[in-house]
Amino acid sequence: MTNKQIDRYKGVRDFYPEDKFIQDYIFETWAATCESYGYVKYGSSVMELSELYLSKGYSEEILKEETYTFEDRGERSVTLRPDMTPSVSRMIAAKAKELSFPQRWYSIESFYRYERPQKGRLREFWQLNADIFGISSTEADIEILQLAYDLVKNFGASDDMFTIRIFSRKLLDAAYEEANLSQEQIKEYTSLLDKKAKISEGEFVELSDKILGDAPNPLSLIAESASEKIKEAKQELEGVVEAAKKLGIENAVIDDSIVRGFAYYTGIVFEIFDTSGENNRSLYGGGRYDKLVEQYGGGPVPAIGIAPGDVPAQDFLETHNLIPEYVSSTDIFIATTGSDMTGPANALAKDLRDSGLNVSVNVAERKVGDQMKYADKLSIPFVLTLGEDEVSSKKYPLKNLESGEEKKLDIEEIIEHLG
Amino acid sequence: MTNKQIDRYKGVRDFYPEDKFIQDYIFETWAATCESYGYVKYGSSVMELSELYLSKGYSEEILKEETYTFEDRGERSVTLRPDMTPSVSRMIAAKAKELSFPQRWYSIESFYRYERPQKGRLREFWQLNADIFGISSTEADIEILQLAYDLVKNFGASDDMFTIRIFSRKLLDAAYEEANLSQEQIKEYTSLLDKKAKISEGEFVELSDKILGDAPNPLSLIAESASEKIKEAKQELEGVVEAAKKLGIENAVIDDSIVRGFAYYTGIVFEIFDTSGENNRSLYGGGRYDKLVEQYGGGPVPAIGIAPGDVPAQDFLETHNLIPEYVSSTDIFIATTGSDMTGPANALAKDLRDSGLNVSVNVAERKVGDQMKYADKLSIPFVLTLGEDEVSSKKYPLKNLESGEEKKLDIEEIIEHLG
Repeated sequence: MTNKQIDRYKGVRDFYPEDKFIQDYIFETWAATCESYGYVKYGSSVMELSELYLSKGYSEEILKEETYTFEDRGERSVTLRPDMTPSVSRMIAAKAKELSFPQRWYSIESFYRYERPQKGRLREFWQLNADIFGISSTEADIEILQLAYDLVKNFGASDDMFTIRIFSRKLLDAAYEEANLSQEQIKEYTSLLDKKAKISEGEFVELSDKILGDAPNPLSLIAESASEKIKEAKQELEGVVEAAKKLGIENAVIDDSIVRGFAYYTGIVFEIFDTSGENNRSLYGGGRYDKLVEQYGGGPVPAIGIAPGDVPAQDFLETHNLIPEYVSSTDIFIATTGSDMTGPANALAKDLRDSGLNVSVNVAERKVGDQMKYADKLSIPFVLTLGEDEVSSKKYPLKNLESGEEKKLDIEEIIEHLG
Repeated sequence: MTNKQIDRYKGVRDFYPEDKFIQDYIFETWAATCESYGYVKYGSSVMELSELYLSKGYSEEILKEETYTFEDRGERSVTLRPDMTPSVSRMIAAKAKELSFPQRWYSIESFYRYERPQKGRLREFWQLNADIFGISSTEADIEILQLAYDLVKNFGASDDMFTIRIFSRKLLDAAYEEANLSQEQIKEYTSLLDKKAKISEGEFVELSDKILGDAPNPLSLIAESASEKIKEAKQELEGVVEAAKKLGIENAVIDDSIVRGFAYYTGIVFEIFDTSGENNRSLYGGGRYDKLVEQYGGGPVPAIGIAPGDVPAQDFLETHNLIPEYVSSTDIFIATTGSDMTGPANALAKDLRDSGLNVSVNVAERKVGDQMKYADKLSIPFVLTLGEDEVSSKKYPLKNLESGEEKKLDIEEIIEHLG
């Protein structure tokens, strides 16, 4: 065997402790926020039968070109999960008869897409998925908007750092119906709306006229509340935004360019935008999908959810200086004056651990000063030095490496000081 | 699209909230135990270049038959990570020059093996990997044994529920050298030792004689301390077990049938056995691998680690009745007397959340009694009922669903009661 450095696979990340610290900070903030709203954690496998996607809107071409799909030796086609909605819908469908609704669920899992690696697009990434199943009324929409808002705010963000742009697929569909558009026109016009924020107004009007021909303009129909269905859907959308405002969400606005890619959305859709110039793009979004669970055989189960990703979340936090400084999960490093101190150090460490402190013990042949430097390099906040005197006096010098302050404390005082 | 139930892929698990609760209990206990010893968390990708394994002991045949290995569209061979040691060794090697050693690292990640699904063997499972890098002395071996012990004990296990069986590959190699065995004999004899606990003594002796022919018996050479190298390695092994005993680990024993499968082990090897009749097999093991990091180009970095899996851990906990009862992460469910109460309920929930409580609000059209049943079915411990009287008096009836006890409390009292 030759000694040879082997790189990681392209488009994925290694998480050294400092990197994992940031990812875990994101995960823990997400988890605490979801749990504060009563969402409980679930999980599924990275490997799913390709059939799960093929039968529900993914084409064979998309699976082949944009996901990791391969055959196992039993000739089953397997896909590495590209998003959570099919998996969680399958799980809800399988137990729809036993579960009491609403079910509020969240997961933090990894996903796989065959992307050309570039900024913000990786082949392996993590997503929070938070969904409420079983409620078709706007109470659920309002709750998901609150959750979406707190999922940004709880990182210490202020309202001016982001906006929530909301629209309604139900409203759009009512306008399409009133305008009597063909399926082809609906597809093209929806895709045009999706690009609206990125093109000029003149260009939008020109392309819009080209698609619509003599048909009425759906956005004008919405503006005029041209049918009862349009009027109802519009009132619903406005009601949701109004209710969100009452709950303190001031940065939510109605925006008719928010349509979201997936075909399965049926109601409210929204996206969160970073307002800073550097990073002015959709961070993540969500929406209502009332028909998907039923397609997996579970009977009708309405659903609405949100799915933030770890990569845009970290970009946002970096842009706004919201990432906390790395500090080791280890509270105390026990430095030893010689190898005869390892036994006593292990015994002392055991007592400190039993009181809930995280303690590592020197096992290297190094001078005490170099042990201090080592602990500092690892960002361990405190060093306790152990020699013969300390073993007999049971008073230990505890040094705060950031302030340089040192105190002689007994074990109870240390636990009180750091516990 | 037809409505059709689609199963999960064979050999993997769905984690409904009650299942995820158990897995997270295992993960959190592992994480807290590792951190108590100063281990910091890292992570890597599920996808690795197959080269990572091929160049380090895995044969092409094993990769093809026992792992998920496929070609991406750039004709790179990709393997879904079957174990962590190659990945973490690669990561340490890549930064060996910048890192201060020892590095104590742990991760809790998923792994993929193409197994025929059966009890205890799944195609996707999770493992804790905890390793200390950069220390060749027995201080590190003793620490890993302590950690291995606490990784079982911290689930509430008692000493009689498991044993730690330890041996030394260094000792075995010294005996092989003294016996002057051929590579073929070494391979066969090691594999025989691995089976020793499962066959009769007579059978062992017979097979042993067949492999060794006229060569001296390595186990006899060890018993006789037949060379200086054997003597040293034996003293080292005995010293480690002795030191572990001094630290309170009474259930560690030397056992010459513990050799561990992987070729990369170079020193202490050990396995943890469940002592109960039902589940009498190796739970998990670990060992010293001083040469592997170097093979990834990182210079010499000795290492020792342990890798418990979630499936054997859960089996062990179930066997010994050590799994805690499921309780929702949600503290309070707010029941409402009508839809006009949703606004006030959201406002109250917001205040409770700001004080760190996890609160879900009724969004279904149900009578209060049915809302109580719903909260109980979801194992939410407390229900607070909100009607017009409560909104005006600001005193809320808080019911403990387990005891049935109900108290009228204001918001500060609720926070104090549950916070």
